[in-house]
Amino acid sequence: MPPEIKQEGDDSMSIVEKVLEGDVRAVARLLRDIDDQVPSTRSILQQLYPHTGKAYIIGITGPPGAGKSTLVDQMTTYYRKLGKTVAILAIDPTSPFSGGAILGDRIRMQRHFLDPGVFIRSLATRGHFGGLTKSTHDMITVLDAMGKNIIIVETVGVGQGEVEIAECAHTTLVVTVPGLGDDIQAIKAGIMEIGNIFVVNKADREGAKKTVQELRNLLEMGKKFRMETGATNGWDPPVIETQAHKGIGIDELCEAIESHREYLTTQALDELKKIMVKRALHQFSETLKDELFKEMMRRMEKKGMNIDDLAAKIADKEVDPYSLSRSLIRDELKEPESAV
Amino acid sequence: MPPEIKQEGDDSMSIVEKVLEGDVRAVARLLRDIDDQVPSTRSILQQLYPHTGKAYIIGITGPPGAGKSTLVDQMTTYYRKLGKTVAILAIDPTSPFSGGAILGDRIRMQRHFLDPGVFIRSLATRGHFGGLTKSTHDMITVLDAMGKNIIIVETVGVGQGEVEIAECAHTTLVVTVPGLGDDIQAIKAGIMEIGNIFVVNKADREGAKKTVQELRNLLEMGKKFRMETGATNGWDPPVIETQAHKGIGIDELCEAIESHREYLTTQALDELKKIMVKRALHQFSETLKDELFKEMMRRMEKKGMNIDDLAAKIADKEVDPYSLSRSLIRDELKEPESAV
Repeated sequence: MPPEIKQEGDDSMSIVEKVLEGDVRAVARLLRDIDDQVPSTRSILQQLYPHTGKAYIIGITGPPGAGKSTLVDQMTTYYRKLGKTVAILAIDPTSPFSGGAILGDRIRMQRHFLDPGVFIRSLATRGHFGGLTKSTHDMITVLDAMGKNIIIVETVGVGQGEVEIAECAHTTLVVTVPGLGDDIQAIKAGIMEIGNIFVVNKADREGAKKTVQELRNLLEMGKKFRMETGATNGWDPPVIETQAHKGIGIDELCEAIESHREYLTTQALDELKKIMVKRALHQFSETLKDELFKEMMRRMEKKGMNIDDLAAKIADKEVDPYSLSRSLIRDELKEPESAV
Repeated sequence: MPPEIKQEGDDSMSIVEKVLEGDVRAVARLLRDIDDQVPSTRSILQQLYPHTGKAYIIGITGPPGAGKSTLVDQMTTYYRKLGKTVAILAIDPTSPFSGGAILGDRIRMQRHFLDPGVFIRSLATRGHFGGLTKSTHDMITVLDAMGKNIIIVETVGVGQGEVEIAECAHTTLVVTVPGLGDDIQAIKAGIMEIGNIFVVNKADREGAKKTVQELRNLLEMGKKFRMETGATNGWDPPVIETQAHKGIGIDELCEAIESHREYLTTQALDELKKIMVKRALHQFSETLKDELFKEMMRRMEKKGMNIDDLAAKIADKEVDPYSLSRSLIRDELKEPESAV
């Protein structure tokens, strides 16, 4: 027994070292293991965590078809010219028929594939059954520890989990395109307040000016609202027009990101701190939830309880999910100490 | 102590009875309590659960601006004419400046507000911090137990949680509109395989025929793929054109829903069973995750551990979220029995 444990320790140690050195193969393998929820990743992540906090994290979110991947591709080119290394984590809705992450989007990125300064990884949203945000945090931990200067996290749409992920970035871009619907509902819906920078992509399309104007009006309303309620208001989110496929507007966008970074790191250290703490809280809660649930599943299995049988019983109303959940917790958790 | 417990029991008993009788005020209050995560809701839900399973659940998902609310409004009119009662649960991204669920969409529904056969409720996605799907399941339990014939659950976009919710319906509608982006990415992205019926709304818009054709092609591809892999293929999802604001195509849509219901309840009982078990499994896992996490938070608080302080320590890299999570689990869970 002991030699085996030692060997595992050595193994994980060497993986940690390799990741810290930026070894692409080790990183790719570790990310795959995280995706597959391999238990040994836990101790590796634990060891990597103290080495994080150096990367600048940019979140980019918006509806499908807004051209986010093309934008990310162009931004990557911009940062590479400045000599910065980039990691891209694309949270992809799984394509139904390909069985994997959507290939089309990723193919556009292929001009960066041979560049060792760029690391690209897609994480499919299907099959995680709620564990998506935990996996995303874990992967950001790895990409940060591997030493990439900039991490771009691309999420789709306005899903709750996806918004939570975007909120944990230093700078969050919200992307839209003209003609998405009445009254730019597509952007109003839940993601307006999380954007530090708004991007109207495909700005050569009909209706672009109207979309930009509507966004500016909404932001103006938001500003008034914040001022009235006394909320902090040191940063006015700009609205930037881009035509990503032609590379138009990318410099302006990246300069706006740099302005926001400067704002955070010089004028608004309390705000920066708030982002970091929010991210830490989110990462911790998601880890705890996930680990608790998995541990519980392991214990149920050990006791010969089959989760599918239980689900069938719940479906047949033989037992309700609430009582079952409570009795499991009662069985497996210690008596609470000193119940006053 | 004992009288207090008894009183609580009586109270919850009468709430259960009221809900089962369809008392709108009691239901509204209970839903608010679920939203506010009031602990006493647990025993009420437990008692309501055996009375569920009678409602037909229709999920409706699609990007913002696709006109889902108008569709739901029209479908409600259709079902009311047939004498069926309807509950609508709209999972709404919170509007940033109104501070609540988006009002615009809901206002359209106001013609049903005075109809006692219709119950409408919005659930905002913000502030749930991962508990959204649990709250949604709980609310469906209540709406089912209150005796509504049809429950329509409306979710936005392609977020993971939202897709999981839609998947738990008997019949899932995926709505899109013409001109949403290249190659109907908006619909391809992750929600293609969950749709039992596809709706192209605003079908009078330019490009509608193209969108319908692309959808049909994709569905055809999917069919071939399923046949080759031997997957069940008893239901061919139809593509239906609607102009919800004019009431065009609603009859056809509702007839398609009825066909799917008939298919499930006569030809595909195994498929129906699978949906029920999937929903039960989902509801149970979400309940267990949520209860475990809350119980853990309570215990941490009792021990004087402040979650915000912990988050600050994690942000400062004094501790990592993985070790912290493990040590909490070690402290609070019983020793696993008979570790072989």
